Parts: sequence; C-alpha cells; structure tokens
Amino acid sequence: MPRYKLTIEYDGSPYVGWQRQDTGPSVQQALEEAVFRFCQSETLVQCAGRTDAGVHATGQVAHFDAPREYRTDRVRDGLNFHLRPHPIAVLGAEAVDDDFHARFSATGRSYLYRIVNRRAPAALEAGRVWWVPMALDAEAMQAGANHLLGNHDFTTFRASECQAKSPVKTLDELTVRRVGEEIRIATAARSFLHHQVRNMVGTLKLVGEGKWMPEDVRRALEARNRSAGGPTCPPDGLYLTGVKY
Amino acid sequence: MPRYKLTIEYDGSPYVGWQRQDTGPSVQQALEEAVFRFCQSETLVQCAGRTDAGVHATGQVAHFDAPREYRTDRVRDGLNFHLRPHPIAVLGAEAVDDDFHARFSATGRSYLYRIVNRRAPAALEAGRVWWVPMALDAEAMQAGANHLLGNHDFTTFRASECQAKSPVKTLDELTVRRVGEEIRIATAARSFLHHQVRNMVGTLKLVGEGKWMPEDVRRALEARNRSAGGPTCPPDGLYLTGVKY
Repeated sequence: MPRYKLTIEYDGSPYVGWQRQDTGPSVQQALEEAVFRFCQSETLVQCAGRTDAGVHATGQVAHFDAPREYRTDRVRDGLNFHLRPHPIAVLGAEAVDDDFHARFSATGRSYLYRIVNRRAPAALEAGRVWWVPMALDAEAMQAGANHLLGNHDFTTFRASECQAKSPVKTLDELTVRRVGEEIRIATAARSFLHHQVRNMVGTLKLVGEGKWMPEDVRRALEARNRSAGGPTCPPDGLYLTGVKY
Repeated sequence: MPRYKLTIEYDGSPYVGWQRQDTGPSVQQALEEAVFRFCQSETLVQCAGRTDAGVHATGQVAHFDAPREYRTDRVRDGLNFHLRPHPIAVLGAEAVDDDFHARFSATGRSYLYRIVNRRAPAALEAGRVWWVPMALDAEAMQAGANHLLGNHDFTTFRASECQAKSPVKTLDELTVRRVGEEIRIATAARSFLHHQVRNMVGTLKLVGEGKWMPEDVRRALEARNRSAGGPTCPPDGLYLTGVKY
C-alpha cells in the first residue's frame, strides 16, 4: 500500500491532544476521519510527536497508508477539504517508502514555547501563548537553560506518567530570546520525555522572575527528582515546530 | 471629571464590532461594563476607529471619564480584571486633559491586513487572517497600491452605508510586502472611509493574482464608482494597529 507522509499545522485548543481518547475530540481522530472520507479506507494516522491537550503544531509529521496511489497535491487538498471546519491543515504530502514511520524514523523534534510578558493579558493570542505579567530576564533564563544542554538524566523534568524506557536524553538546543513583549524559547532534541519541555519552561520562568538563580537549574537537574524542578507550565504556548528524518 | 485614554488590544471575532448594537455583544459594551464595575460609574467609552464585526485591534485608542482620579496602572489592571474572560486587553492607560477626544483629536490611523497565501488553509490563524490559496504577486500589488497614494476621491472604495461628509481622503501609506507565506498590507491616513481598507485590499488581491494589471487600480479609482472596484475582503485579516494624536 502506498504510504504518505503529511506535514500538519493545528490549533490544539479544542482537542484532548493528538491521540484518540474517549474523553473528547482528538487531532488523530479528525485526521483519520478525513482520510476515510478522502479514500474510503479505515486506517491509522501515526504521528511523530503526540502533543498533549491544548498544545499546537506548525510542523507535526504523520503518515498513513492509502489503498491506492494519489498525486501528492490531491492528498493535501483532499484531506484539507474533508478536515473542514477543524483548525487542522495539511501543509504538504509526500510519497514515502513503506519502511518510513513518522514516529520511529524521526531523528529530531523541535518545539517553540511563547510567553507574552507584559502587564496586560494576552487578548488576540489568548490560548496560543502563556501570559506572565511579572518582568522576565531573558538573559538569566538563557544562563539557566545552558545547564540543561547535552546528555543528562532528565528525571527532574519528567512527568510521572511518562512511558519512556530511560530518563536519559540529549538536549541539542534550548535558546531563550526576547522579541518585543514576547519571550521565545526554542528547543530541539532527538526526543523528549513526557512534559519535558513544559517542565523546563516552568523552571526557567522561576529564573526569569528572579526566584531562582541560573545555577539552581543545574542543582535541580542533578537532584533527579521531579519535586526539585519548577511547575509544569500551561500547554497554551507550546508548538511542535518540526521533525527531522 | 478626570479623563483617561486607553490603548486596547482585542480579538474582534466574537463581536458585532466596536459599536454597541442590539444584535450582539460589542467591544464598546464590554469596556463600558468593565468601567462600571471598576468605578461604579455609567459612562460612554469612545474610540478612535469604530471597527466592524470580526476586525481586530492591537492599538485601538479610547477614552472615558472617571468619577475620581486613579493611578493609571490601577486603571489598566482594574479594567483588565473586570474584562475577563473577554479577549480584550487594556495595554495602557494615561490621564489626559478633558479636551482630548479619542476620535476627534486623532490625526492618523494605521491598519495592517494579513493574508495567508498558500495552498493549505490557515489552521492556527483561522479568523485572524484571510486565506488566499492562489499565488499572489506582492510586487504587482505594490505597483497597484501606489496609484492610491495621496489625495483622491475614494468613492470607488467606499461602502454605500458610509457616513463621511466627503469621499476625498489623503492616503499616506499603502505598502505590500511578503513575509514567508504571508502578504502584509500596511496602510495609514488621517482617516478612512467605511470599508475603505477592505475594499482596497480586495482590489489589490485581483492585481496579485493577475486578473487586473496594476494600472487598472488607477482606472478604478478614477471611475469614482463602487462597482468599478474589487470586492470587499473579509474582516478576519484586518487589525487597527495604531492611532496618532
């Protein structure tokens, strides 16, 4: 069966997350229903990064098997037609070999976290950013972030329900920069633990507001204990921006 | 009575527009209710640019009279508290003389129009941009836009229900630039006719997709007839970005 790789953008706000669940609508369900309407085939749509409820994507990648071959622009346009009115868009479709797997073939994931840092709440971007009214020091946050780069045991930043075999990961990028009223945190790794990005951001926010020193991030990491880390930040500001193969 | 000038951001999607109407919730009503809860005074909140249904603002300006003096940061924070959960935020408050009028003292308004120009629909930005799937030529659009700069009779771009005394306006800026998948159209003038920005953008889109030549914009302008112009584009992509005094 021909396999297609999809690059997908979505607003995660109305969904219980990527994965199908009995508790509400999921991105996966919306895509599988669109695939069914497009090619009359009931099939699994598998993704590279199973985003949580409220988490967005500008570059999620998924794959599915079609009962016959289609032109890739027809796959893209057909799925987008059947996705309406979901806030989910297929940005591109590509024919891939049947040994390609969106999740298991991925060699890197990148995320962006957006904080609106001003006294006034976010109005236009509500649900798409985390509003932090107290002034954040982006340079201090970057100094704290630097302690997390490289190969470490990330137990401190791991959700209790995380299913990864090992808490050891290699963090390739964690950059903090201010863009006007926004703090943008970009991060990349081969893979992440469950809630790792949100737990790292929640910790860096403590550094940004001066409650923690940058060195406290290293001490938290070395404690290898979730209770030594900062709180999990809200999903609203998190975007899966890309997947490498 | 002390007068306060407010700078306001809002998502226009859930509103019938700035102005109070019997047909649904308005930005003005939400602000007047917040003012009432903040200082127990029933008062008019008057704005610089009465945006239509679905039109957003990042820099709307309004004023109101308070029964007594407040610290300006208390005005901002207090109104924001009482505005919840509306997607409306007071970015700043300023004490002004009682001859200041948000609308009549304004000497300039600026708007931004955002078009997402790609084959895939806008998912994350749905309601906040106009999705145009056919490729647009931003340079041709700019060439067309240049014919509108300066002092002209803008009848061609004026809504029939427009209440302005004269259709003659001076357009100070109309720039079209491509930023990745987006076409951003920025415009500024002392004031605009009703629907003028959306009618200009709807016309420039015809130039962008090659249905019109840039010179056709001049011919449309000179016709001084609404039916000679392009269609009114949707409100979704329009933002009132600032007001000058």
